Amino acid sequence: MTISPLFTDLYELTMAQGYLLNHHNPHVVFDMFFRRQPYGGGFAIFAGIDTLLDDLEGLKFSCDDISYLGSLGYFGDEFLEYLSEFRFSGSVLSFREGSLVFPEEPLIRVEAPLIEAQIIESLLLNIVNFQTLIATKAARVLVATEFGSILEFGMRRAQGYNGALMASRAAYIGGASGTSNTLAGRLYNIPVSGTMAHSWVMAFDSEAESFERYSELYPDTSILLIDTFDTLNQGIENAIIIGKKLRKQGKRIGVRLDSGDLSYLSKQVRARLDAAGLRYAFIAVSGDLNEQIAAQLLAEGAPVDVWGVGTQLATGHPDAAVSGVYKLSARYQGRQIIPTMKVSNNPAKMTNPGIKQVFRFYDKDRTPLRDVIQLADEPIPEGPMELHHPTLHYKRTMFSAFHSAEEQLLPVMREGKRLNPQEDLKIIRDRVITQLQRMDETFLRQINPHEYKISLSRALRDLKFRMIDEYNRG
Amino acid sequence: MTISPLFTDLYELTMAQGYLLNHHNPHVVFDMFFRRQPYGGGFAIFAGIDTLLDDLEGLKFSCDDISYLGSLGYFGDEFLEYLSEFRFSGSVLSFREGSLVFPEEPLIRVEAPLIEAQIIESLLLNIVNFQTLIATKAARVLVATEFGSILEFGMRRAQGYNGALMASRAAYIGGASGTSNTLAGRLYNIPVSGTMAHSWVMAFDSEAESFERYSELYPDTSILLIDTFDTLNQGIENAIIIGKKLRKQGKRIGVRLDSGDLSYLSKQVRARLDAAGLRYAFIAVSGDLNEQIAAQLLAEGAPVDVWGVGTQLATGHPDAAVSGVYKLSARYQGRQIIPTMKVSNNPAKMTNPGIKQVFRFYDKDRTPLRDVIQLADEPIPEGPMELHHPTLHYKRTMFSAFHSAEEQLLPVMREGKRLNPQEDLKIIRDRVITQLQRMDETFLRQINPHEYKISLSRALRDLKFRMIDEYNRG
Repeated sequence: MTISPLFTDLYELTMAQGYLLNHHNPHVVFDMFFRRQPYGGGFAIFAGIDTLLDDLEGLKFSCDDISYLGSLGYFGDEFLEYLSEFRFSGSVLSFREGSLVFPEEPLIRVEAPLIEAQIIESLLLNIVNFQTLIATKAARVLVATEFGSILEFGMRRAQGYNGALMASRAAYIGGASGTSNTLAGRLYNIPVSGTMAHSWVMAFDSEAESFERYSELYPDTSILLIDTFDTLNQGIENAIIIGKKLRKQGKRIGVRLDSGDLSYLSKQVRARLDAAGLRYAFIAVSGDLNEQIAAQLLAEGAPVDVWGVGTQLATGHPDAAVSGVYKLSARYQGRQIIPTMKVSNNPAKMTNPGIKQVFRFYDKDRTPLRDVIQLADEPIPEGPMELHHPTLHYKRTMFSAFHSAEEQLLPVMREGKRLNPQEDLKIIRDRVITQLQRMDETFLRQINPHEYKISLSRALRDLKFRMIDEYNRG
Repeated sequence: MTISPLFTDLYELTMAQGYLLNHHNPHVVFDMFFRRQPYGGGFAIFAGIDTLLDDLEGLKFSCDDISYLGSLGYFGDEFLEYLSEFRFSGSVLSFREGSLVFPEEPLIRVEAPLIEAQIIESLLLNIVNFQTLIATKAARVLVATEFGSILEFGMRRAQGYNGALMASRAAYIGGASGTSNTLAGRLYNIPVSGTMAHSWVMAFDSEAESFERYSELYPDTSILLIDTFDTLNQGIENAIIIGKKLRKQGKRIGVRLDSGDLSYLSKQVRARLDAAGLRYAFIAVSGDLNEQIAAQLLAEGAPVDVWGVGTQLATGHPDAAVSGVYKLSARYQGRQIIPTMKVSNNPAKMTNPGIKQVFRFYDKDRTPLRDVIQLADEPIPEGPMELHHPTLHYKRTMFSAFHSAEEQLLPVMREGKRLNPQEDLKIIRDRVITQLQRMDETFLRQINPHEYKISLSRALRDLKFRMIDEYNRG
């Protein structure tokens, strides 16, 4: 699937023509970052960069695109000609896909001629904002289920085809074990799963017959939906018959509960399965689940083995979006770098000037301690450092008790070419899980989490304050 | 853009293979409907059917799709061969795109062999649930702005490319005047708009220069963003200079406010424009708007001419999805029609059996009075009718005071071929606006609206009760 660069806000193009005709197309540096964690949580999972890089490599206006733009009446021949030759020729640095990330730190750094950097803005934000939202949601569900087995099946209420496909991709990265979205399975190599709906059970003369037919056909994946008629008086009994039959073949069943009180029912069903000697039969639950409901079920001791999560995972509900932004941080004048920043009455809306790097500091067990945003030309941190709060100027600290430091923004694209092939999603998913497991639990709390520390280096903070002072002097 | 039928939940395919191997593939009838209005409002705008019909016509498993399915280990040669010949051959009836619609009534009726009807379920729900969500959101904003001019620019935080494209389409249908999404403009023939971002203003040595350059290039669409530095002390003054210059050429400016208190600022800016003789200059506002904020601004008398609405419109926030479902209502046994229904302990989860039609009743001014769901073979309603509440069996009424009745489910596809070409979106949008204007205002209230009446015909209610009785007798 390639996307047209016409997938951009029109103002990017009206501005781009203005820059071209005013001969104002310097090399610039943009940072993508967000200011607030989604869901009021303590972390986000960065996702989408691999999708973005593929798209950037393929970006090209088609003849239809160009003639459409011509028809709008805004654009002259010189600009249309420029667009017909348009390719993204910039460089990109980025956090690794699947990194735990935090507010204020640059997640992606784009260096390109101004016009190119602007035309890709909407595409970049669209991809990364959404996939990060969903990967984060999946990781929250993963934590809530104590690293349980989660199946994503939200496609029927996801936002568009591609909303569904990207949601499946991002949910898997964030820790889901699989998806029901078969096309996502093929495109992204995600394990797919799914067995029967109520309509299957109702298509036969009896529930017992429907289970029988199913287990004959799929003896290895017989997850029987037992709530169509009466879970405890009928469904579980019919499932146990199949379970005993399959046990003789060395195979096991699962049962799925999709309605009713999942805590009460799962305990009853577990007891009945155990009493029938089907201790290995597993219990899947579904039905408008989210991280809060999962946590509550576990707190009540519900014996759930598999969590089917749909709409709320695929849409990131109750948040609609990660509010990622893309802001100019420097421009080149010849070979000289001019840092730029947005000065605002609202300190939270100020940006951090200059070309920056992010370091993550670890203790000896590789538990992350804090992140530091510094200027890219500062040396790799070693000894004790003076660190500053990103917005509150009176907050500072000395920091030295760390074991190692790791650069987070790595080169992923140079002159429009990606530097590495797509990673297998399984590797990205493993990275997410490893990081979550290394993180102190207080940062993973669902609500009111411990706030992970993001600091500015002394040099970055000094640059920022100097620029604010200059601005205030007019 | 064609979508693969692999865009389906895996269980549709595992079940489909089961039906095929069990020689159980009768013609069936499915209804798509929803049970609750989005946003707690009094209406929804039905959208997406035209997109769906195009997709259904083009559905075809590719060789890659088939070999991927083969690789999963679930599917045998007979079924894979069936899929390689798969085309949707069914018939579809539907409400017209852009209709005001209400809970419980079938919006789409699909008649097809069981396997085909199941394979398209996820696609159908994905498209219609999402576009209906967004068209409804747009209509709510339209009502809140008293049928004002709304620009949708949510793509950077929309859910995927296609989430953004479908959102632009549906927002326009629901009453937006245009979009910033340039690709949506090309694909769906939606007016596109957009002028400048803060980055344009900051790219020049001064705000005044940036406005000057912009208005030279785009004298007909100079919407100047005046809040980059200081709206009232600088931005509006620089805009007025341009406004006076353009006025001499017979052109007018607009100004956009993207931050601060939009009520206070818009009044101040209006006064300054008027005092400068620029009464025709218009004021656009933006920044996390939604229907509640728009209504509040108008209630305070804010002189807003254009509403830029982004994230919340393109994602349907705070709702994630319309909870549309797709349920079996009848199956054929030879030529005989067997009505089916889901009987549930929860009356709201019962379905209405049989092949159904929906009539909308109007008074002489074409104001809708109520909708009636009846069996498709009942005659067109004329005289007094006994009508029943959809779930409460003791509620019934006699109804006769209407001027006309109109069938709502119209044939749109027969044997897999659509019967009409795509409608121009402008026509659909006009239909939405006309209906909203004809509706009694109490139904359009943002919260706690008057509930529009949906009834069952006597015959449908009798069939439903008969089936419940049969079920209860076991």
